[in-house]
Amino acid sequence: MRAVAGVAAGVALGPGTAQAADDEALPRQTAPGADVMTPPYGLPSVYEAGVVRRERTGGSPYPTRKAAASLTPLQDLHGVITPNGLHYERHHSGVPAIDPNDHRLLIHGEVERPMIFSVVDILRFPAVSRICFLECSGNTQNWGEPVAQYTVQDTHGLLSCCEWTGAPLKAVLEEVGVRPEALWMLAEGGDAAAMTRSIPVEKAFDDALLAYAQNGEKLRPEQGYPLRLLLPGFEGNTNVKWLRRLKFGRKPWQTREETSKYSWVMPDGSVRQFNFVMEAKSVVTSPSGGQRLRDRGYYEISGLAWSGRGKIEKVDVSIDGGASWTQASLQEPILPKCLTRFRAPWRWTGEAAVLTSRATDETGYVQPSRDELLKERDARSYYHYNGMQRWRVADDGVVSNGG
Amino acid sequence: MRAVAGVAAGVALGPGTAQAADDEALPRQTAPGADVMTPPYGLPSVYEAGVVRRERTGGSPYPTRKAAASLTPLQDLHGVITPNGLHYERHHSGVPAIDPNDHRLLIHGEVERPMIFSVVDILRFPAVSRICFLECSGNTQNWGEPVAQYTVQDTHGLLSCCEWTGAPLKAVLEEVGVRPEALWMLAEGGDAAAMTRSIPVEKAFDDALLAYAQNGEKLRPEQGYPLRLLLPGFEGNTNVKWLRRLKFGRKPWQTREETSKYSWVMPDGSVRQFNFVMEAKSVVTSPSGGQRLRDRGYYEISGLAWSGRGKIEKVDVSIDGGASWTQASLQEPILPKCLTRFRAPWRWTGEAAVLTSRATDETGYVQPSRDELLKERDARSYYHYNGMQRWRVADDGVVSNGG
Repeated sequence: MRAVAGVAAGVALGPGTAQAADDEALPRQTAPGADVMTPPYGLPSVYEAGVVRRERTGGSPYPTRKAAASLTPLQDLHGVITPNGLHYERHHSGVPAIDPNDHRLLIHGEVERPMIFSVVDILRFPAVSRICFLECSGNTQNWGEPVAQYTVQDTHGLLSCCEWTGAPLKAVLEEVGVRPEALWMLAEGGDAAAMTRSIPVEKAFDDALLAYAQNGEKLRPEQGYPLRLLLPGFEGNTNVKWLRRLKFGRKPWQTREETSKYSWVMPDGSVRQFNFVMEAKSVVTSPSGGQRLRDRGYYEISGLAWSGRGKIEKVDVSIDGGASWTQASLQEPILPKCLTRFRAPWRWTGEAAVLTSRATDETGYVQPSRDELLKERDARSYYHYNGMQRWRVADDGVVSNGG
Repeated sequence: MRAVAGVAAGVALGPGTAQAADDEALPRQTAPGADVMTPPYGLPSVYEAGVVRRERTGGSPYPTRKAAASLTPLQDLHGVITPNGLHYERHHSGVPAIDPNDHRLLIHGEVERPMIFSVVDILRFPAVSRICFLECSGNTQNWGEPVAQYTVQDTHGLLSCCEWTGAPLKAVLEEVGVRPEALWMLAEGGDAAAMTRSIPVEKAFDDALLAYAQNGEKLRPEQGYPLRLLLPGFEGNTNVKWLRRLKFGRKPWQTREETSKYSWVMPDGSVRQFNFVMEAKSVVTSPSGGQRLRDRGYYEISGLAWSGRGKIEKVDVSIDGGASWTQASLQEPILPKCLTRFRAPWRWTGEAAVLTSRATDETGYVQPSRDELLKERDARSYYHYNGMQRWRVADDGVVSNGG
């Protein structure tokens, strides 16, 4: 901590000055403030009005605001929890307003006892809570040329992390009796798009949840209120919102969202489907694109790392674009399939720098560079970009997207 | 999980019925829903409008809504995180609206280099995040006769839990150089009440934070925006909000909030000051006061346990008011000075029951019964009630406060 001295510190006072400043010179309130419960469900300070979800800088890539996305302001966040009001969104036909008393979940297909569940039925099951990330597999469009003015909200904002609570899907499935020949599960949303995905039955019996709460309170409408499928570590789109139906069968259904979209383009031009797991990835959130270092000296390089396969083992950071690396410290607790906050000290000398980070997960998988990723996938790809992110720091302190 | 069969489950369908219900009989949306970012900073569903902070049933014990409290709706929450909009409040002169650009923190007294810090200065330090609880030491007024209609929001709602981020106070104190003769630290709030508490210097150099964020985003105004003292495990009142001044000295300052209030009444009528640590405590949040069991059969008894001294080691639950006990399961991760969610299965037979819970922390301390607590403290006490909470379940399923 001695390295910080004289840099992060404030204004030093002589003893006399300090005495004078004791009660008079510093700002203080002289009139009572607002009442309690103003309002009963509290809101952020008016001075934080700029910290909101946004569409991508330069406009949304989507045709309407019904089939669209909004991005979490990662550059303004601390720790790993995303407050519910800032959780990213991706909808295919807008956000339905569903009365939980009317909502039903049908489980049918290759099962012994097809059943319909109300939300109260699902709440009656034993519950599980876990903190885990959700990431849209369309997050981070660095396949092509980087857009210099992109912030980390633009490049990585389809990423959030909450404490989710729900019933373990396997407990509910014991009630219906899934037949041994069922190898796939169709999950259908209750939105007007009836968004559907085919999920391997192993995941349904592993850590899948029928989630009804996030960060303590009930799901937000845009997160699937009153019920969503939660598949920790799987691409966001498979975590079907406003969950209406689960059907068991022998083969995947080849729905729109797993044929025309959410597939990979391989270097030989072939297309690979059913790429569920989000591989290890990381990003520096501070300093990051659009910010400006106000003066030379000490900074904390801080960011997020995550893996759909388990815990983060290690994060390395670089100030020279990956030529040399230093191991960052990881904030405890380190949880599986959860964002992990990393931090590394840095003294900025006033020279240009390129900040980047590289995550390693507990399976030993190492986050690739963009070049390494492009050996595995064609640049015409759209989904599952998990290459390292570079931020260029100019000698005037301005930070921009280096792709 | 087999115990659940036929109880928590929904409506079973014959195969023909299920086929018919497939796409037609169940509710679904037919028109597009709301746009993304409606609004940009998201809000709960309109169907959750009743889940808000409240004053105590029957009215607040405080004279005005400036010097008052509001309670977290624990009966409606899941997991351990409290969403920021539902964090309990306790103010002594309302909630000031502070421009973070104007706010300053003075550190002076028995220090080598008195200094004034801006919020940007504090943000420049290395950061630490941790999930921990805050509890007002006036939480749970079971010293006298229980009020039957109290909910768990009434009895235990001065309790919340967030992921807090800030600068370790010890790092900041290295800048000012606290003198060896300084044994106490005065923390003063920037509100009109200038709320002040004397804190032992050991705590300042232990795990104290200068916190600026909660659950990812900046502090809420009612939680001390832009800067609060966070003293994990210490009574809520010492976690001074809108923090304006830290002064080091040789003796405690004997402020209003540590003489006329926040003290203990001992059985011999003497008064004990400086009872900082919140001892181990637990409460069943479901089923709890004001709820009604809708039918016989399986229920999950679920609640929260916490200790200001470290981790929760064990929680026992009883359905007969403490005559017999069963060990509950604890939701991982179990973090020190943090809420821990416990769960235990229960089959309600339709007979009257008295639900209660008992926490043991890692120091071996066991939460006392009310009778045990009253051997240590006089019933004229007000603060630090941590006795077991009893909920009476009547044979019609109605749950009421048993004190």
